Amino acid sequence: MEVRSKSYRYPTTVRWTGQKIGTSSVAGKPNLQVATPPEFKGHEGIWSPEDLFVAAANSCLMTTFLSFAERAGLGFTAYESEAEGLLELVDGKFMFTTIVLKPKVTLKPGEDAGKAKELVMKAEANCLISNSMKTKVTVEPIVS
Amino acid sequence: MEVRSKSYRYPTTVRWTGQKIGTSSVAGKPNLQVATPPEFKGHEGIWSPEDLFVAAANSCLMTTFLSFAERAGLGFTAYESEAEGLLELVDGKFMFTTIVLKPKVTLKPGEDAGKAKELVMKAEANCLISNSMKTKVTVEPIVS
Repeated sequence: MEVRSKSYRYPTTVRWTGQKIGTSSVAGKPNLQVATPPEFKGHEGIWSPEDLFVAAANSCLMTTFLSFAERAGLGFTAYESEAEGLLELVDGKFMFTTIVLKPKVTLKPGEDAGKAKELVMKAEANCLISNSMKTKVTVEPIVS
Repeated sequence: MEVRSKSYRYPTTVRWTGQKIGTSSVAGKPNLQVATPPEFKGHEGIWSPEDLFVAAANSCLMTTFLSFAERAGLGFTAYESEAEGLLELVDGKFMFTTIVLKPKVTLKPGEDAGKAKELVMKAEANCLISNSMKTKVTVEPIVS
């Protein structure tokens, strides 16, 4: 039996800088300002924890798709995905109940749209971020 | 019976820009480059979906703490939190099994360290990002 013991660690820091704002940092990567969003008495124009959470799911589908498409030799010219997370009160506490991802893939001429959709769905099934969420993540691919 | 029907929507987009890299965007906020991390055959120096996920939990604890500390009238001069997410194979699929958050709070003279720790733990219990994760999120506050 093969023992798959691989694991990876992701360290990150956040430092409060005043008001409801802080700086998120990952070693060797650009800093990112984060803040409480306006609807929770915070700030406009700054990434919120909510944005980061939804963007994590959305970007994970992209990176997983890129890997699967490469392995499958799928030819495409564009990938863009709109995501929307829904925050709702469940038993008196807020949580993201659903995230809907709408990836739009533009294929090279002659490529198989069915195969592309399959690869998107396979990518989502293997997305390690969705796997880590209680949130129901649904994918509605548009392939052209 | 009070019906709490409040809900919020968080839209975000990611657009592939080449290689294993894309641009994450939220309307009215700065764009953020995202990429597959090096350990999954991606790129150095760019935020990965994994970084976003861990940063979401870490920054949510900060913003929730800021709100609770304000309401409780707690005087503090600094807040910095190191976080580490552990990605492991579970039933053949990667997921974040644990995230450890180590918030360090520096109090104003005369403030009660016990009360500050309580506020941190209460903030974590109410963090909407942790609430949305399968990941076991633990908090180890350091108050001085």
